[in-house]
Amino acid sequence: MRILILGGDGYLGWPTAMRFSAKGHEVSVVDNFARRRWHTENGTDSLTPIASLDERLDAWHEGSDNRVRSFVGAMEDAAFIDDVIAQTSPEAIVHYAEQASAPYSMKSRETAVETQYSNVIGTLNLLFAIRDQVPDCHLVKLGTMGEYGTPNIDIEEGYIEIEHKGRKDTLPFPKLPGSLYHLSKVHDSHNIHFACRIWGLRATDLNQGVVYGVETEESAGDERLVTRFDYDQYFGTVLNRFCTQAVIGHPLTVYGEGGQTRGFLNIRDTLQCVELAVANPADLGDFRVFNQFTEQFSVSELAELVRSSAGEVGIDVEIKKYPNPRVEMEDHYYNATNTNLLDLGLKPNFLGEELVRSLLGIIETHRDRVIESAILPTTKWNPGEATAELPLPGV
Amino acid sequence: MRILILGGDGYLGWPTAMRFSAKGHEVSVVDNFARRRWHTENGTDSLTPIASLDERLDAWHEGSDNRVRSFVGAMEDAAFIDDVIAQTSPEAIVHYAEQASAPYSMKSRETAVETQYSNVIGTLNLLFAIRDQVPDCHLVKLGTMGEYGTPNIDIEEGYIEIEHKGRKDTLPFPKLPGSLYHLSKVHDSHNIHFACRIWGLRATDLNQGVVYGVETEESAGDERLVTRFDYDQYFGTVLNRFCTQAVIGHPLTVYGEGGQTRGFLNIRDTLQCVELAVANPADLGDFRVFNQFTEQFSVSELAELVRSSAGEVGIDVEIKKYPNPRVEMEDHYYNATNTNLLDLGLKPNFLGEELVRSLLGIIETHRDRVIESAILPTTKWNPGEATAELPLPGV
Repeated sequence: MRILILGGDGYLGWPTAMRFSAKGHEVSVVDNFARRRWHTENGTDSLTPIASLDERLDAWHEGSDNRVRSFVGAMEDAAFIDDVIAQTSPEAIVHYAEQASAPYSMKSRETAVETQYSNVIGTLNLLFAIRDQVPDCHLVKLGTMGEYGTPNIDIEEGYIEIEHKGRKDTLPFPKLPGSLYHLSKVHDSHNIHFACRIWGLRATDLNQGVVYGVETEESAGDERLVTRFDYDQYFGTVLNRFCTQAVIGHPLTVYGEGGQTRGFLNIRDTLQCVELAVANPADLGDFRVFNQFTEQFSVSELAELVRSSAGEVGIDVEIKKYPNPRVEMEDHYYNATNTNLLDLGLKPNFLGEELVRSLLGIIETHRDRVIESAILPTTKWNPGEATAELPLPGV
Repeated sequence: MRILILGGDGYLGWPTAMRFSAKGHEVSVVDNFARRRWHTENGTDSLTPIASLDERLDAWHEGSDNRVRSFVGAMEDAAFIDDVIAQTSPEAIVHYAEQASAPYSMKSRETAVETQYSNVIGTLNLLFAIRDQVPDCHLVKLGTMGEYGTPNIDIEEGYIEIEHKGRKDTLPFPKLPGSLYHLSKVHDSHNIHFACRIWGLRATDLNQGVVYGVETEESAGDERLVTRFDYDQYFGTVLNRFCTQAVIGHPLTVYGEGGQTRGFLNIRDTLQCVELAVANPADLGDFRVFNQFTEQFSVSELAELVRSSAGEVGIDVEIKKYPNPRVEMEDHYYNATNTNLLDLGLKPNFLGEELVRSLLGIIETHRDRVIESAILPTTKWNPGEATAELPLPGV
């Protein structure tokens, strides 16, 4: 199958490209290296030393028939994305090419506008390119569970049947996202749904939970193939950040009470889910939504898991509550449905002490690369209030 | 009160500016003349000859104490909008400054991107300016009933209580908008709601129905004060377009079966509603949604009303069904709530033959200005399908 991976140089995009290539698909990747640039601008870096995209592609090609084609450019550039689609004529597109950090989107007006502009306009350009050139192509778009927020009812997969004043309809599940980044994903979802309803395109929106882990089958054994691993305040996801903190002896940074509950999944399961979505395409005209996570945890539960796992290998871990830089509920109902991908055959890799200890081992080998000053949050969701009421330690 | 009208040179913005100025408020207007530019680019024009903004302001000032300050610039320009807020320090902002045409947004990728960029990024810039400079200011944002689409349940005002699997929550009403323009308004609504939830701003979202009419109290008696009146395929709203067609002897252009039902209101009631919203501000942190229309009609009902009203004054009107350039349901359930503004004291000017005949009279005086070639739709919601199945007459 001809598969195009947008954001193919990223944390998930690069492993996804290798996976589809390893399975014999004709894979092309697109990236504008925005993620690498943001890290440079913030003085941060991936914990794992990552090769350039060209080096990665060469290493992947070495001693095999695997060839992955690359295109360097931005989704906001309509002429560029038109040209990529014309040259690759994809049957499936996996779309990771977005600014994906909530704290980065909340850092300033400039980063907020950049996030919504890049994500919304980039995806809109893509939808027109698909409509006009490859209308049968299946768009697999990475969304986020954060689009839903934390409603007081069970979260369904994209839609909910509502009975109201004696009538019924199945409508998009209402969204209460918690950051300007998450809002950009809500905007994308509405735009893509429209393209399916009005133009008859086909798409699967993968509302992903928080991903953890770094190793995948294809990266093992060649350090030039390893994907990035972020632990900083902007791009570090919570379990990756906690494990890094454990290794370097920094207290685990629980924001507020730690009761924030979210869906989580292993990076290996991200690849499984994307493979399942591509192998089982949506029907033409259908905007399909899958909630892509395997387990729910609260932040405090994750901190406890890291402490106990680290303790087993002799690492003493302190858990510390920091004033929450975000505006969010710290004690709330949370129960999200995730059966669509299981029904397609997903076999979850559940989180346990063994996984955490393997992660601690990988981090240990790179501990000299940790930039400790990048860990504590300086970006506050509500700068006015946070300054007055919540002095942040070490800021 | 210090009131800032964004889009103050437009169809509704200019009458709104005069109204608040007449009531003794300190009014400033902002516009970048995009609407005038779009008409020039499309070879169309307002049926009523409209004065330049400077001429309008001079005429409004003549022989009275009324002074309205003006700022020329775009909402997408963050530095510009910051400067305007700094200079005017508004207590209320009425925000009409958006590309407001569904067909224009569907014309091409360029106009789609322009619409979503201008509307979403412009409003996002504004929210940051309010947060950082005038956090107590009340934002009154013009939304549209088109955000809801045509669900099979009653449409509530912004929120709906959902009972699901034994639990309850009141959540944003699900949105199924019918054009890329309407989507931009949905994106705005989500962003503004966020600013209220997270930053504690206050806003009222006026989800307006389709507006008709041209005269308001303040414009009567001085032709330099008249507002624009559009009847073309891009910017003409349906009743204004039908009345213009009746006067020039063009068949009324009913798209498809004509069963499309929407909420409508008189331009005089738009002013009443905006006044009521400003006089009764939302609480800090509150994102209040009012459905702003007074009556529901189907397109066929409006066509019949124009025919019968015109018949009374000896104008013979033909109603003709055209292939629908839009992708929309032409026979559907529609029942929307609109009690919030009535509860605040709105006294509706209902639509009847007298109003239609007065409109016909105004149009008659300008009939030599009608550009007939601009009336029939050339923009199709789904270009691929429409080309194959729906040849449009006269295109």
